[in-house]
This record gives sequence, C-alpha cells and structure tokens, in this order.
Amino acid sequence: MLLLHRAMVLRLQQACRLKSIHSRLCIQACSTNESFQPQRPSLTFSGDNSSTGRWRVMGTLLGLGAVLAYQDHRCRAAQESTHIYTKAEVSSHTSPETGIWVTLGSEVFDVTEFVDLHPGGPSKLMLAAGGPLEPFWALYAVHDQSHVRELLAQYKIGELNPEDKVAPTVETSDPYANDPVRHPALKVNSQRPFNAEPPPELLTENYITPNPIFFTRNHLPVPNVDPDTYRLHVVGAPGGQSLSLSLDDLHKFPKYEITVTLQCAGNRRSEMTQVKEVKGLEWRTGAISTAHWGGARLCDVLAQAGHQLCETEAHVCFEGLDSDPTGTAYGASIPLARAMDPEAEVLLAYEMNGQPLPRDHGFPVRVVVPGVVGARHVKWLGRVSVQPEESYSHWQRRDYKGFSPSVDWDTVDFDSAPSIQELPVQSAITEPQDGETVESGEVTIRGYAWSGGGRAVIRVDVSLDGGLTWQVAELDGEEQRPRKAWAWRLWQLQVPVPAGQKELNIVCKAVDDGYNVQPDTVAPIWNLRGVLSNAWHRVHVHVAP
Amino acid sequence: MLLLHRAMVLRLQQACRLKSIHSRLCIQACSTNESFQPQRPSLTFSGDNSSTGRWRVMGTLLGLGAVLAYQDHRCRAAQESTHIYTKAEVSSHTSPETGIWVTLGSEVFDVTEFVDLHPGGPSKLMLAAGGPLEPFWALYAVHDQSHVRELLAQYKIGELNPEDKVAPTVETSDPYANDPVRHPALKVNSQRPFNAEPPPELLTENYITPNPIFFTRNHLPVPNVDPDTYRLHVVGAPGGQSLSLSLDDLHKFPKYEITVTLQCAGNRRSEMTQVKEVKGLEWRTGAISTAHWGGARLCDVLAQAGHQLCETEAHVCFEGLDSDPTGTAYGASIPLARAMDPEAEVLLAYEMNGQPLPRDHGFPVRVVVPGVVGARHVKWLGRVSVQPEESYSHWQRRDYKGFSPSVDWDTVDFDSAPSIQELPVQSAITEPQDGETVESGEVTIRGYAWSGGGRAVIRVDVSLDGGLTWQVAELDGEEQRPRKAWAWRLWQLQVPVPAGQKELNIVCKAVDDGYNVQPDTVAPIWNLRGVLSNAWHRVHVHVAP
Repeated sequence: MLLLHRAMVLRLQQACRLKSIHSRLCIQACSTNESFQPQRPSLTFSGDNSSTGRWRVMGTLLGLGAVLAYQDHRCRAAQESTHIYTKAEVSSHTSPETGIWVTLGSEVFDVTEFVDLHPGGPSKLMLAAGGPLEPFWALYAVHDQSHVRELLAQYKIGELNPEDKVAPTVETSDPYANDPVRHPALKVNSQRPFNAEPPPELLTENYITPNPIFFTRNHLPVPNVDPDTYRLHVVGAPGGQSLSLSLDDLHKFPKYEITVTLQCAGNRRSEMTQVKEVKGLEWRTGAISTAHWGGARLCDVLAQAGHQLCETEAHVCFEGLDSDPTGTAYGASIPLARAMDPEAEVLLAYEMNGQPLPRDHGFPVRVVVPGVVGARHVKWLGRVSVQPEESYSHWQRRDYKGFSPSVDWDTVDFDSAPSIQELPVQSAITEPQDGETVESGEVTIRGYAWSGGGRAVIRVDVSLDGGLTWQVAELDGEEQRPRKAWAWRLWQLQVPVPAGQKELNIVCKAVDDGYNVQPDTVAPIWNLRGVLSNAWHRVHVHVAP
Repeated sequence: MLLLHRAMVLRLQQACRLKSIHSRLCIQACSTNESFQPQRPSLTFSGDNSSTGRWRVMGTLLGLGAVLAYQDHRCRAAQESTHIYTKAEVSSHTSPETGIWVTLGSEVFDVTEFVDLHPGGPSKLMLAAGGPLEPFWALYAVHDQSHVRELLAQYKIGELNPEDKVAPTVETSDPYANDPVRHPALKVNSQRPFNAEPPPELLTENYITPNPIFFTRNHLPVPNVDPDTYRLHVVGAPGGQSLSLSLDDLHKFPKYEITVTLQCAGNRRSEMTQVKEVKGLEWRTGAISTAHWGGARLCDVLAQAGHQLCETEAHVCFEGLDSDPTGTAYGASIPLARAMDPEAEVLLAYEMNGQPLPRDHGFPVRVVVPGVVGARHVKWLGRVSVQPEESYSHWQRRDYKGFSPSVDWDTVDFDSAPSIQELPVQSAITEPQDGETVESGEVTIRGYAWSGGGRAVIRVDVSLDGGLTWQVAELDGEEQRPRKAWAWRLWQLQVPVPAGQKELNIVCKAVDDGYNVQPDTVAPIWNLRGVLSNAWHRVHVHVAP
C-alpha cells in the first residue's frame, strides 16, 4: 500500500507536469484559433484493468494526493464564492476557451484546469460540461465521497441564481410533451421520437449498462402507462382462454432473470452513410447496451392461454401501447418456435437491472428476445397474439430487412427479404476514439463484441496497421452459457505502440462460436436502410510525439 | 415442339461453325506449342435452366440432328473398326494434341472432334478422356439411349485388346489395399487415406450429389464391415441399459429421411495456401456435397439407452470402426443438447440417396449431424457414449479448430479455441472456372451456397467487377425449412458481358438468415490449419473476342 501510495504521488506529479504542458498548448490553440483537442492524461495504471478497480484506485489517489497538488485553488475558491450565475451562463462554459463549468446542487465550479486530471479521463468529465454533475454522479457513485467534494470545493466560483428555475414549456398539443427527462450524457440522434446512444467512453465502462444511459430507440411518443390499470391482453388459442393480465398477475408467473444485450439493427449506420446515403438515424457505435432483465417467460404465459407448438409455421405478434396519430401501434413478431422454446428464454420483462422498467424502456412491460434484433423487443407491451403469418406492422414487413447493395428505393421489394431476427456478429472499438491522439509507448484499446442467436464471441482480433497483422484481445465480462450467449463480451488489448509510429489504423473484428466473422469493408454490405452494419470497426488515431 | 426442333437445328448449325473455327484454333495452338484451353460451346439454352432439362433437350437434339452433322465420320468409323488397342494406348490419348479417346465396353472411340460439341460441355466429357465412359454414364443415365450409342459409333476407331486385363497388384501389407474402387471423375487430393472431391463442373450439376462423386474425406483406411455381424454399441446412462444394436435393430427405430449438405472444414483450403502455407489437404471448392440420408434418430437411440437432457453440459462421443496401426479409432463428439433435440434431426444414417451407405461414406452406419462440420459425422460408427467432456480424440481437440491469423505452430494453444461445430456461411462459383475463356454476349454463372446451424441462405450476390457492383443471383434447389435449412441452395445468374470487356473478375458472396455474410478476403481469416475458408469466391476469366 505504501508502494502504491508512492507510485501514485509520482504519477500525480507526472500528471501535473503534463497539465502544465497542456495549459500552454491550450493557450497556443486559442491564439491560433485551432479547435480544442482534449489530451488524454497518463493517469491509468496498467496493473489494474477493471474500470471499477481504476475508479477505486483513483478515489484513493485523490483523497491522498489532491491536497498536495491543488493548494493554489483554495484561495481562489474562497475569493469567488459569492458570485451568482444563471443556468444560461453556466451552460455557455463548455470549452477550454470559455472555461469549463459544472454545477452541484446550487454551487457553480470552474473545472477547466481539472479536466485533464480527471481520473476517469477528460472526455467523461466533459460530458457534464455546462450542466449539473448529479446525473453523472448518480451513474458513478464513487464520486459521492467527502474527499471528492473537498477536491471539488477548491474549484467553486459561485452560486446558481436561486430564482433561475426554468419552467419547462410544455406544449400540450405536442405528443412528445410527456416524454420522460433523459440523462444528459446521451448522444441524441432524434428528439421526436427520442433516439439516443451512450457515448463510447461510457458504453463499455460497465458490463451492465446503467439504465439512464442504456441506448433508447423509440418509434413513437412514450406512452404514460398507469401500472394499476395496466392490462396485458393475450389472445387465447382455439380451445384455450384469452388472458387479461395485470402487473400482479404477471408477477405470479415464475420469475426468470437473464443478462441480455440489445442492439438496434441500425447500430453503426453512420459508417454506411459514409459510403452512400441511407435512410435512417445516424447511430454511431452506441445503439447497443446490456441489462439484467427480470420477468415472466413468454412460453409460460402463452401456455396458460392454451398455445403450444404446432407443425405449421406460426408467429407471435406483439403490439405496443405507443401509437401514431392514426392510432396505429408499434408492432413486431417472432416465430412461435422461438417463443415456445424454454431454451430461447424469451421474457415479458418488468425489471431492468433490478428496477421497474424506466419509461423509455417500456414501463411497465416489454418483450426481451435474447439474441434477436432490438426491433422485436416490443416496449409498453399491450397485446400478444399467435398468427399464421408475421405481424403486418410496417416495422416487421417494410423495415428492418437487409438487401443487396444493388437495391435502391426504386427497385426494393420488401417481400423478397426475410425480416431481421438474429443478428450477425458485431464488434466495435470504444477507446481510443477516431481522431484522438494517444500517448506513445503503450496504448490500451477497448471495445465490445456480441453475436446474435445465442452464439458466443470466442475471439476478437485487433490490428494496429489497418488489418495487415492482428493480435488477440483479452475477453472481459461474463463467460456465456453454451447456445445462450445472450450478452456481449467487453474486450481490451494493451499493446506497445511501434516506435516512430505517427498514427495508428486500429481495427477490430470478432468471431462467434459458429465461426462467423465480420466482413472487411462496409460498401459490399451497404443497404438502402443502413441496417446490419457490422464490417470491421476502424479508428484512426494520432500518436503524440 | 416443331419450333423447338427448328431452333435446335439452327443452333446445331451455329455450333458446327463454332467447331470449325475451334479446330483451326487447336491446330494453331499445337503449332505454337501453347497449352490446350477448351472452348465452351454456345450449346446452352437460356429458356431452360435446370440441368436435367438441359440434358433432356440435348438428348433429343442429338437424336434429331446428329445424322445431319456427322455423316463424314461414318466412313472413318467403318474403316478403322478392326484396329486393336491396349488400355495403355487409350489412356495416353487425353488431349487435342494426342487425340481424345474413350472406351465403352470393348470398343475404342476417338472423340477429339466431338468434345466441343458435347451437350454437357467439353469439360465434362474431358473427365472421361483416356478411359471408360461407363462410370460417367452411370451418373448420367440419359446417355444410355440408342441415339447416343449411334452417335458414338461414328467415332469408333477399334477394339480393346481382349488380353489386356490389368490384374490389380494388391499388397497385402498395405492397410489401404482393401479400400473400395472409386469413380474416375473424383479429383484426388490424397490416395492414402483417400480424399477426393468432385470437379466443379459436376458438383452443381445436380442438387443431390450422386453417391459415386460425393466428396470423400477419410482419415484412415476404409474398414470392411460385415453387415451381418455389425453391432453398434451404445453405452447406457446410469440406471439405463447399454445397447448392442444390429443393423436390423436400427431399422426397427422410426426411420427419418432428410436432405443434408456435408462440408469439410477444409473446403477451399487451397485459397488459404495461396496466402501462406497451411497444413492440410489442398481442397478446392468441392469438399462439399449433398445427399438424402435415411436412418434412425440419434435421440431415439439415446433415449432407449436411458439418456436424457441434463442441466450440466454433456457431449455425445462417437467412435468409428476405422483405426490407425496403434488401434486408435477416429472419434468426435457433439453437445448432448444437439443430440437430444428432435428438431436438430441428428441421424444414425444407414441410407444415402436411397442406397445402403457406400463403403467410402461409412457403411453400414454413419452419424449425420445437420448444419455441423463434416468431421463430426463419424463414419463406420462403432460406439456411442455420453460424457461430461468432449471426445478426447485428436480430431476433436487438436484439429478442426479456428485461430487468429497471428497464431503459428509455435504459439498455437488448441485448448484456447472451441472445436468447430456449426460452420459459417459459404458459397462458391463452379461455372465458369478460373482461367477459363467465356463467350462474349452473355455469361451464365453457377455455384452453390450453404450455411451451418440450419440457417437458410437468403441471397447470393454476384459481381463481375471484383466486388465493386453486385447483382442478385437466382436461387435454385429446394426451399429449406425455417431453422432446418440443412441443405445447400444452387444458384445461377445469366448476365450480359459488358461490351468491350476482355476479362471478368467474378465474385460471389452469400447471406444467411442470421444475416451473416462472408468476409471479403482470405488473409484476415487465414489460420494455420487452413480451415473455415469462406471468403468471397473469386474467379478470373477471359472473354473471347
């Protein structure tokens, strides 16, 4: 522990030197009007790779070392504590040029000089720039400790104007007016309907994605469902009985809990757009998240309604309680064979990471279909029926299908392609990010990998030279069950940067246990809806001299 | 019919003109000592695409038109019918330079000038060059008709020496001495053990591969099993009973019949060798074939021995009756969950295309594991047991696994990779072949596509420009059942050759219903054993001016 302490102080001193250099760089950047490029501090420890581990170490480090390093701030904090700022003023301070301000409760802090020393990396603190820290501290409870508050106090510059409470302007004619408040870290691709993804630096911070930053893919306004009057209608089989299940009724079925990764078919669509325009939201690498779901098994509920597997092909159709102005509800279906297979573990989930489902994720009940595209995990579930054919919903028949690159909107025949169910193997790099500058010496590359259909990821290959040579990454996260690998694997590779290298073309590709691989390039899998974008993920980074 | 007849005579006349031109080309080639490049005749009809259809039309065509076209051969046939030739002499006539000879019964024919007019294409007749026609006529019974014999008679040049019966030299010390006689069309990759594949031009001629040319992958000498004394030993579960089943006993289980494609993990290994040396047989595109299998379900047999699915992972281990000099038998295993799943349709097969299994394919009983790599379809099955771990056989644990391109024989850790079970999506072009010259105007591209795990092939994209632009091929062959797409789809694309094009870089890639795709290139999936070679298949062809 003593050694660790000494090492920390040493590293903190190094970090402070880095900080000084960087301050000069910033000034230079301002004077030449160049854009701000956050520098990554060398404050990571190669000996402890788990993110919680890093936080813990960092917390300790701050408690022990902070006093030494920031004595100069104390005076300034004392001098400036009487100033009053509006929220608007705070929100305009989001860059080194303007200063980087945050709030906690009614206090305002200028953390410009601390950003590069933030143990979780500058980019994570920057997510809170111009606004409150609370939503982020709620995600990372390690912050809520006296030594962190003490440290922060040194940066206090004033108080929020107590009268500055912005009353939200609710347009009652706006169908989205009742949508829930979202976490500020989410990168919004569309406000109405709300579609947003966690930033890469948070996405793989945890094996289980915290509910507030779980990617959100809504097709319509979020319905406001009263849990007391909620009923799930299950159409009975011929000779069986139709069910109208309250939440309490659903809780009476045996409860199952599974960890499942959900991915939108449009994840990484932005890379397809770079090849040729597509119709769809510009998802980057974050339309994927993992949660621990709890609920009743769909097969148990269907059995109670008298359904059983039949020789002929049939489909379980789901309808959401979200609907468009004409009253058309979101809908989708999955094959009955999957629904009735206990091994497929399809859930009617009412819990997400131990909590009731958040409104954005289907409160009070959503379908969770492990290994299958997100579009079939119908939220705000209202009705379940078994039909000889797939759901007639737009989203089942005229969307979420893959086509040849040669097919355009003039030639597309949606009936010619099957609806997407299982998804192909996928992986992406979340750290470092494209365009970033990494330190020379050693680089840590992190990301996620997942495959559909319960196929486990067995290997992730990483290249620093655009795919000419490869190294095998270390798989983190939970070992998956055979044939039930519903959740992703996080992975990382710590690797020396070849001497003299000025840039790296980092590439990752995953292999699943059916030995399926990702295609090399995007263009040959381009399709007019921009779905199924699972080519090798590539980031180009500069190496600091 | 009359119209058809007129069209045929017209095309035959065109073909004859082509023949004359080609004869000149051949002479020219001989004089400049260039290698023989068979020309493809324009004798295909775009209106009828099925291969059997083509054969039927061709048969009729020959019956009607042959007399007109080949009167000049009659005289020569009469003159030369008294010559006597040895088998050795016949077998030395296999090229246009030497003449192309074949035999039928005791008669010898010089078919040099007929080769380019062969309705099935010159390459198929060339397979029989220098030897007997019978093995090929056995495959394609349409030949055995009076008008075909009449046509052939025109090319007769003599008789085989009746004393020229080569006694096979059997070395009794040779463990392979009792291997069966094989079809001469097979392209042999290894004689001992015997490993051979059908040539591309025959591979996709039929949806069901005829038994004699089904690819053969033997690891050891072929055992000679007496069906009367044959017993299959099934180790019983604790509390169950071990079984010793005769062939008659196996026949008493309910019989199931399914069409299943088998593929060797090493199919298309020769393309990996072009990247970097690998250890393994140089399979081209033919280590894949399709048969209709009949037999008892493994789950029924296991149930009779008292086995049932258990919560803990278990494996069904198979042992063949083929063994090496130390007595070690071929062995492999599959997960118990697959074996016990009636939907997985794992068979103990005793029939192949309505016949008892040929010796090369496991007589009297082999395992057929739909959707799974060929190596687990253990032949000459002797013993079945259920174990907590995978088979300890070399072929389960130290072979048939995939690795990163960075892994070599110094660094390989076989325990780090799972044994190959399900195979990834695959496709290949069988027509035209690499290096071939195609006619300008229109080209017909044919091939096969298949995926493991019961995933259906939903699309095959074909490119003529190396992958820049794509067209969707037409899928032939049987529509597959959902989740039980055990058999391949044949496909074809008839497409105009862009004007002025001197060469084509033809590429194919398939997509399965999990929207898995093939990788673009070979190098990034290269592995030291050369397995799982499923990159886009590419052939380069010249266009005739």
